[in-house]
Amino acid sequence: MVRQESDSLVLRPTRAGLHEFTESVESWLASTGISEGLLTIFCRHTSASLLIQENAASAVGRDLQRYFARLAPESEVYEHDDEGPDDMPAHLRSALTQTHLSIPVSRGRMVLGTWQGIFLFEHRRATPERRVALHLIGE
Amino acid sequence: MVRQESDSLVLRPTRAGLHEFTESVESWLASTGISEGLLTIFCRHTSASLLIQENAASAVGRDLQRYFARLAPESEVYEHDDEGPDDMPAHLRSALTQTHLSIPVSRGRMVLGTWQGIFLFEHRRATPERRVALHLIGE
Amino acid sequence: MVRQESDSLVLRPTRAGLHEFTESVESWLASTGISEGLLTIFCRHTSASLLIQENAASAVGRDLQRYFARLAPESEVYEHDDEGPDDMPAHLRSALTQTHLSIPVSRGRMVLGTWQGIFLFEHRRATPERRVALHLIGE
Repeated sequence: MVRQESDSLVLRPTRAGLHEFTESVESWLASTGISEGLLTIFCRHTSASLLIQENAASAVGRDLQRYFARLAPESEVYEHDDEGPDDMPAHLRSALTQTHLSIPVSRGRMVLGTWQGIFLFEHRRATPERRVALHLIGE
Repeated sequence: MVRQESDSLVLRPTRAGLHEFTESVESWLASTGISEGLLTIFCRHTSASLLIQENAASAVGRDLQRYFARLAPESEVYEHDDEGPDDMPAHLRSALTQTHLSIPVSRGRMVLGTWQGIFLFEHRRATPERRVALHLIGE
Repeated sequence: MVRQESDSLVLRPTRAGLHEFTESVESWLASTGISEGLLTIFCRHTSASLLIQENAASAVGRDLQRYFARLAPESEVYEHDDEGPDDMPAHLRSALTQTHLSIPVSRGRMVLGTWQGIFLFEHRRATPERRVALHLIGE
């Protein structure tokens, strides 16, 4: 019978950029006993975001960070800068990536491809604790 | 026992840009009687999109609108311009943001962070009615 | 009573760009016998992505492909180029679009708008087989 589980993770990024937390999600998934279903990860912030990306080559993460730094740069003039020059670029980079990810679960595992990992994309230089909600429905 | 509810909202943006409709979603959620679950919001258009963003400072919305106007500008030459110069940029800005959002629900509320609101991002100057589908599964 | 179905599709894009596969998803949906629910499509790759876009004018697809080629160009210098000059741009274009789509189902059909189609966005020139996971929960 279909049932639900939910929880939250606290992530503590130590710098701006990509931080993989696939293993934390896998551990939680295993603890639920649900083997078939849909897992949703939701980032409760507007200056950090989520991304599924290549988990093997760390250069991909560095290239991604540099690319988004150019695409939504600090150097531009923004109306909103209440929390400093990295405030509005953080909102823009979040808007261009994901606030939530939904991943099917099959045989007790997320159906991630071989090279896919789950990342928090931290956009602020001062890196506060980040809270991520987890939801799983299945059986 | 897990059950489902679904509905649709008609949004009437009066100008291009971000339009918050968090309260409409909250009202509908309350009406369903479901307190734990997964809520999905789906935009049935390709020239408007959805975004979870900062709900406190209205300058964030204006900066976002100006940023996407520069990132996918009307000034470029596009092959597709059946409906005028804001037609193709609207598709591009939609592709760069979200067509759907899924948000876990806990204790009768969406697990939005303190500063997160749900926005329609209207990309056309002539602003037609916009239809958004709602789906909730839970108990 | 709420139940689940899951499957996977193998897509064989013959060139980089947008490839519609709405009909394959519709066929699978019809085969499940579930008429109300939530359908999730998940791309198991980090160099191809998913997009809901205009399904009528093929020029939209060509404009989208050219736009993303300019936005995340091959010409830039990236640290990561293990698989050639289209490797890192493929990751960037994936990060800017979607790895998964969730679409409510009502009366046996996805609630897509009239002009919405489901597309694989292939970012590599050499176009391998692409695997997409399908998940449906409903009744």
